[in-house]
Amino acid sequence: MSHPAVGSGVAPAQAHIGVIGAGQLGQMLALAGIAMGHRFTFLDPGAQPPAARLGRQIQAEYDDERALAQLAVECDLITLEFENIPVSAVESVSRHNRISPGAKPLSIAQDRVHEKQYLASLGVPVAAYRAVDSLADLHAALQEIGYPAILKTRRLGYDGKGQAVIRAADDAAAAWSALSGHAAILEQMIPFDREVSIVAVRSASGEMAFYPVGQNRHEGGILYRTDILPNDPAQADATHYARRVLEGLDYVGVMAIEFFERQGQLIANEMAPRVHNSGHWTQNGAVTSQFENHLRAILGWPLGATESVGHCVMLNLIGTIPARMGMLAIPGVHVHDYGKEPRPGRKLGHVNVTAPTRAACITRAEAVSRLIQGA
Amino acid sequence: MSHPAVGSGVAPAQAHIGVIGAGQLGQMLALAGIAMGHRFTFLDPGAQPPAARLGRQIQAEYDDERALAQLAVECDLITLEFENIPVSAVESVSRHNRISPGAKPLSIAQDRVHEKQYLASLGVPVAAYRAVDSLADLHAALQEIGYPAILKTRRLGYDGKGQAVIRAADDAAAAWSALSGHAAILEQMIPFDREVSIVAVRSASGEMAFYPVGQNRHEGGILYRTDILPNDPAQADATHYARRVLEGLDYVGVMAIEFFERQGQLIANEMAPRVHNSGHWTQNGAVTSQFENHLRAILGWPLGATESVGHCVMLNLIGTIPARMGMLAIPGVHVHDYGKEPRPGRKLGHVNVTAPTRAACITRAEAVSRLIQGA
Repeated sequence: MSHPAVGSGVAPAQAHIGVIGAGQLGQMLALAGIAMGHRFTFLDPGAQPPAARLGRQIQAEYDDERALAQLAVECDLITLEFENIPVSAVESVSRHNRISPGAKPLSIAQDRVHEKQYLASLGVPVAAYRAVDSLADLHAALQEIGYPAILKTRRLGYDGKGQAVIRAADDAAAAWSALSGHAAILEQMIPFDREVSIVAVRSASGEMAFYPVGQNRHEGGILYRTDILPNDPAQADATHYARRVLEGLDYVGVMAIEFFERQGQLIANEMAPRVHNSGHWTQNGAVTSQFENHLRAILGWPLGATESVGHCVMLNLIGTIPARMGMLAIPGVHVHDYGKEPRPGRKLGHVNVTAPTRAACITRAEAVSRLIQGA
Repeated sequence: MSHPAVGSGVAPAQAHIGVIGAGQLGQMLALAGIAMGHRFTFLDPGAQPPAARLGRQIQAEYDDERALAQLAVECDLITLEFENIPVSAVESVSRHNRISPGAKPLSIAQDRVHEKQYLASLGVPVAAYRAVDSLADLHAALQEIGYPAILKTRRLGYDGKGQAVIRAADDAAAAWSALSGHAAILEQMIPFDREVSIVAVRSASGEMAFYPVGQNRHEGGILYRTDILPNDPAQADATHYARRVLEGLDYVGVMAIEFFERQGQLIANEMAPRVHNSGHWTQNGAVTSQFENHLRAILGWPLGATESVGHCVMLNLIGTIPARMGMLAIPGVHVHDYGKEPRPGRKLGHVNVTAPTRAACITRAEAVSRLIQGA
């Protein structure tokens, strides 16, 4: 189990995999990986994070050079489950060992301005945007982009945090002050018909695979439902754009790209350089889960098929989990519980609803939805 | 997380589950259970058994009363992944907490004479058999049963160990002496057309579900391949017999029953009161895996659907594991690796091969099979 030379692309059949972050994504990676014979060490500053029960935890901050070096040296290869870690941490690891994905996708995904610039440079449509570093910048940007627009922090935003909608010039000062002087981006607010995302994967060997597009619904900025529609009309464009991004970045691992769809056109909203909530349906609804495929990708192994088997809807369990008896009495329901302390607005788990027909899948998903709303 | 009153049938949504045994079956139970929010403690005498990395291990012999009491008191409910533990251990646990399955199915499954008696008492066909406690018994039994016959130890046999075929009276003395005086059973050797098994599950609530029948191939007494045939003609009878056994025993959990099929008639060979190797295909080929359903059953929760999704073949990896690159390049292949030291004859993992058609599934399975034979 000695680690390979940096960048050699060769990993042992039973690998010791280091993961930066130990949340539920790390947990689900480890559940898939242990089944395949691997073992895991997680670097995470938290006390008893979800994934820690599935391996060893190096409890340290993400910028702890010594801890990062330890992870890099002890493991056969490194990956991450969380994109808001310092790029310097990834660079530090990469001096000792292979880390996938690497510093470039991370640095792009961490900054909304760089992300939009990069996507646009590849010919992927994005909303009009301007970098905003002051209230004066904001007023100038609003002149160009118009209303409504959305002001977001450039960095460290997730699940709708650090965002403010601006519907008129009067809103600008309050929106700017809510961001407490953080560097920001103003984006045209797209009056979209729906939100879709694609989960895509590229192996260290260069092989690529694309999951069926998911149709997402958010509430308060948090994803709560993903539907896999048979023959989704957005599939071809989403696959085309994802392929460009994966190839452009020489990317290794699973990536998700979220899009707005307006009059049949896709407009990229953001990319996540990791396994993604909108891909959780693949655990019960696809030939190969996104977690298994992420590991196959970073190990340089052939990828598994990404087709759906039957129909699937994923529902997030946020803040509270309804009683198991009710949910599991609905056919085709699988409850995934991350073992976290309940707290309002916190993602505690998800439900994958499968069915042999789309109609049955909707009926079942709506029955689960009623239980979630009643909980 | 306090444990319920003995036999109350109520378990917390996030349960602390105690498992007697920590082999690969315990590991796969824990992988399914942790995804559902549960945590695990294993009682096992081994050093670093496969499941131990997925929870706490109480390292103790299976008859260690103190360790059994600790497991029973600390966990919310108890199950087992290994049937060759003393019945007294199960009885000991059951004085403190609920254990599923319980002492009765275990005591029946541990003794081939009791097993045959019990199955026959429920109207389940079994081969002609006689209890054999001496060479004189053996000669008398051979007179009644005829040739060929198979002499087996009554207890502690698995994977074909402790068995001898008797083709003529001359073989009797050698067969008897090979058993070193262990209590034995002589069984008529059925000239069967094929071997099939059914994996069935009954919840603490009484709900039952039955997986599609698997067609098994053994070599040297060890299972090496299970095929799920569409509309297997043995399904109705296998389900009928399994239902009788589950109801007769007031059984809780997953059970497997192996049958010989001869001219369309099923003859029960043995039962296993636990998740079973011939049910491993359900991880990638069924709506709900046998591991998830075993846990739902012992928790008293509604069972998941047992239908297959697409087509599936399971191949065991015995003694050695072929290179991942070759296996994973075949579409629909999922490699499960138990993380055990390789050793001749040892089950190290299994491969589930899935495909949308039976023909494709066979082609893929045969490609994997060639890699296994070449390894």
